[in-house]
Amino acid sequence: MQSMPAAMTASPTTGLYRAMTGMAGPHAVAYRGPVGVAARAVRDRTVLVLGAGVGGLTAAYELLKAGAACRVIEAQERPGGRSFTARNGSIIRERHGDVTWEHLCPIDEGLYINLGPGRIPHHHRRVLDYCRELDVPLEVYVMETAANRLHTDRGFEESFVVNRRVTHDTRGYIAERLARSLLDNGLPPLDAERRALCDLLRAFGDLDENYRYRGSTRAGYKGPLSIYDPWEDPEPAPPLDVDRLLASRYWEATHFYQPQEYLWQPTMFQPVDGMDHIVRALVRAIEDTAVPGEQPILLDSPVTRVELLRDGVRVHWEGGPEEGEPADYCLSSIPLPVLSESVELVGFSDPYLEAIDHVRFAPTCKVGSQANRRFWESNEEQIYGGISYTEHPITQVWYPSNDYQREDGKGTLTGAYNYDDDALAMGEMSWEDRLELAREGARQLHPGSWTDAAVPLALGVSIAWHKVPYQLGGWADWAVGNAKDTEMYRRLLQPDGAFHVLGDQVSSLPGWQEGAMMSVEWVLGQLDGTQPTVVPQVVRVPDVKSLTQGRAFGPGRP
Amino acid sequence: MQSMPAAMTASPTTGLYRAMTGMAGPHAVAYRGPVGVAARAVRDRTVLVLGAGVGGLTAAYELLKAGAACRVIEAQERPGGRSFTARNGSIIRERHGDVTWEHLCPIDEGLYINLGPGRIPHHHRRVLDYCRELDVPLEVYVMETAANRLHTDRGFEESFVVNRRVTHDTRGYIAERLARSLLDNGLPPLDAERRALCDLLRAFGDLDENYRYRGSTRAGYKGPLSIYDPWEDPEPAPPLDVDRLLASRYWEATHFYQPQEYLWQPTMFQPVDGMDHIVRALVRAIEDTAVPGEQPILLDSPVTRVELLRDGVRVHWEGGPEEGEPADYCLSSIPLPVLSESVELVGFSDPYLEAIDHVRFAPTCKVGSQANRRFWESNEEQIYGGISYTEHPITQVWYPSNDYQREDGKGTLTGAYNYDDDALAMGEMSWEDRLELAREGARQLHPGSWTDAAVPLALGVSIAWHKVPYQLGGWADWAVGNAKDTEMYRRLLQPDGAFHVLGDQVSSLPGWQEGAMMSVEWVLGQLDGTQPTVVPQVVRVPDVKSLTQGRAFGPGRP
Repeated sequence: MQSMPAAMTASPTTGLYRAMTGMAGPHAVAYRGPVGVAARAVRDRTVLVLGAGVGGLTAAYELLKAGAACRVIEAQERPGGRSFTARNGSIIRERHGDVTWEHLCPIDEGLYINLGPGRIPHHHRRVLDYCRELDVPLEVYVMETAANRLHTDRGFEESFVVNRRVTHDTRGYIAERLARSLLDNGLPPLDAERRALCDLLRAFGDLDENYRYRGSTRAGYKGPLSIYDPWEDPEPAPPLDVDRLLASRYWEATHFYQPQEYLWQPTMFQPVDGMDHIVRALVRAIEDTAVPGEQPILLDSPVTRVELLRDGVRVHWEGGPEEGEPADYCLSSIPLPVLSESVELVGFSDPYLEAIDHVRFAPTCKVGSQANRRFWESNEEQIYGGISYTEHPITQVWYPSNDYQREDGKGTLTGAYNYDDDALAMGEMSWEDRLELAREGARQLHPGSWTDAAVPLALGVSIAWHKVPYQLGGWADWAVGNAKDTEMYRRLLQPDGAFHVLGDQVSSLPGWQEGAMMSVEWVLGQLDGTQPTVVPQVVRVPDVKSLTQGRAFGPGRP
Repeated sequence: MQSMPAAMTASPTTGLYRAMTGMAGPHAVAYRGPVGVAARAVRDRTVLVLGAGVGGLTAAYELLKAGAACRVIEAQERPGGRSFTARNGSIIRERHGDVTWEHLCPIDEGLYINLGPGRIPHHHRRVLDYCRELDVPLEVYVMETAANRLHTDRGFEESFVVNRRVTHDTRGYIAERLARSLLDNGLPPLDAERRALCDLLRAFGDLDENYRYRGSTRAGYKGPLSIYDPWEDPEPAPPLDVDRLLASRYWEATHFYQPQEYLWQPTMFQPVDGMDHIVRALVRAIEDTAVPGEQPILLDSPVTRVELLRDGVRVHWEGGPEEGEPADYCLSSIPLPVLSESVELVGFSDPYLEAIDHVRFAPTCKVGSQANRRFWESNEEQIYGGISYTEHPITQVWYPSNDYQREDGKGTLTGAYNYDDDALAMGEMSWEDRLELAREGARQLHPGSWTDAAVPLALGVSIAWHKVPYQLGGWADWAVGNAKDTEMYRRLLQPDGAFHVLGDQVSSLPGWQEGAMMSVEWVLGQLDGTQPTVVPQVVRVPDVKSLTQGRAFGPGRP
């Protein structure tokens, strides 16, 4: 790192680092607003950013603001990377062996479907801050509603059960069971702690005065309300049979409890009219900040070669200058498998190359479907946003958190979003077979209403991210507890000469735009010396499965 | 009921009634869309609707569509009744003894605060249908977020605890306790049911493999994430002390579990830019439907006298014709205490007068506050909508579900919304004292951030609905199990001659706009013979407390 200020190589235990973090050792600092990059460190330096995804664009924007000469080189014909909002005519490309698919998104003008990220947690402060700074209007993304549905292959009598029944009958059953155990075991009088716990259980599970669960209106009403009802009004729905509930093993067969996890708790947001509005806003901001006449973002320019020099880096891309373009720094958000597979890397250290070659991305698929009738918002279904979970390989169905009660009745659904083996299998299927599979899964959740007339097969789209050129997966697939992964992660947090890896792939939030922005902060901090370039120890890589799909729960030990 | 078709007096056990309900006896029918009123029954009949709230306006709209000659007589200078959205310059009036307060709402132009209804459940199909029919755009009302806060007078060490900690530490603690009890009592091997329940508890409460609760990231992270974190990443927040949790008795000291109830489950909605847009849309629709040149809604016209005639009714109001105005029918949505207190009723049957005089409305207050800085959306607080609950007399604080990240930083908060004794006490206070009390309660939830600069006292508003002329309360205060209430409720579901009582006050959803619209359906059904005018038996009045505030839970029996 010839060209960097001395502070950049400060070890984490130096005074500078301590002052920076306020702690004696390396330590996470609460986010207090965009930090950007110090102009003194980058003004008039040349920086090539590889990849125009959220990470690359954010880095370029900050660098341009600080006076760097910065250009973004993007392989695809559009910016955004995985932040891809499909609209009428969008092209979905996948590579299958020697064949490259090209499908046009057939949904109507004015509709959209987020094929990549689709939601922003309220604690992803960097994304929210950039949305504010760049005037990206947000609306609430609804993660879970009481009217959403659940399908499992075993257990329940009906094809689906409604979220509110599963949620509240489970609560009621657990509360009753614990209360009975406390009461049965307690010598009268109950001690104060057990007494208080019993009272809490009444409220928690909606138990009656005898601590019995007899069903709850939290699980819905048995029948519709009337002005004049000779029954107890309102009467709770009869509780689900507890043996069936347990037999379904819904908590491990589906992602039913994912909305409880920190990353998906309310409030969540989505940009109005599609996630790509963040990308568009970043592109606009970059164009407004760049030197007039310069072209700060080059599209259709796959990088072919990166050469580390004594004093910087030289980058070659298709359509670029024959001799490549030199720069003081290169920040690469190219997905590591793509970097490893398609880019000639010259002058890199062997340990760094080993790390680049090591990282694999996780398979993941989405299916999107245009509906011509918002049947899920009908009197019968009453679903406004949220997710239905299923044991079927589609894993989940998302309902739109926008255009509620839209006049023409149209809307878009995420008809599948799956991972691991389900995604690998779907990725091998033809476009048509994927859409048919998605229909099969959705119909278990919506028997009778998910008709071909309501959701025409011909208006479906699909994407297998691990098949998409220049992406090759949904996110870096780090495995917690894997020592090799941990060591490779550590290496990639450091630059090799003037070359830095960027993006959610080297962040504690893989698969999240916030991770990409955290990485920008980290790498720009390395450029201006506020973050260390030497990382002595990483104890743990991100728990990618939990961070992208929620915790998985199987049987415990005893 | 001289003027009504024979079918109207059919007993509920006649064939007509059976055909109507599809059942052998009185029975609630699922709502399948607006029913309106049959033109044959009301065309060219004259109908006077008393009160221009949501009930009165909806009735008038349907009657005009069906060809009736219909006019709405409203006491106040604005339509809407309790559906009152205060904006800059709105007048809040209260009657205190002989004095009438008049306060101008001081909040800035462009802001609003819903002083009456503020949210629409997804199962309130009538309200949602009218919003669609009348082009009222909706947005999500966020009832609960993981970042909301809780204050109790006992228990917790800090002034407040965050929702996600209370929610998930409670779940974890309950799950662990039950799992231990199952494991301790089970002779190995555990039977299948206990084994399955233990596994469910792991997922339900986020227990470790040994079914221990050691804190959960569902309750938040211990510290901020970093790219490069030497600790286990992310580390859960330390769990709340269980003794303190139980000592707080938060489940009965506050409305913390109200969002679990059916009426407040996601998805909820609010009209964009204020609840009064429903009223405005109804007024517009009435004006568009009425005979050109007619004035279908008379404001500033308090009704003074209603006289039942052999063949209809005659209504007098301030500023109306000297001899009163005759009509075939009179539908009165005047709050029953107002009708009883301020309107001379002539020719009514004694049992009906007894019923009118019997009904009391519940006290309820709201405080609204303009904030000049959306501090609750800051990095420190991260609150976007939802409600913080407190044991303080203000009961709750609502954060706006709109204008997130608004550029000028301004927003409006519901700084108090209380009931019963708290509302009675607040109603007796001066305007200034109410705002100071609200500030005191809010500061327990937001120590340090709810400053006078951020939330100036001078920009607050308050309303005690039980003090508002022509309203006298929030909703009819029916008491479940009270035989007298039940009998009076039954009487008021029936007409007295040509006079019908209308509104949420005589519905199974008091305090809800849906209740008002259900009542419209009922009364218009009586006019056209699709609903009975004789109600033989009512077993139960609406459980008003539960329906407006959520279930209350005290100690159980054992």
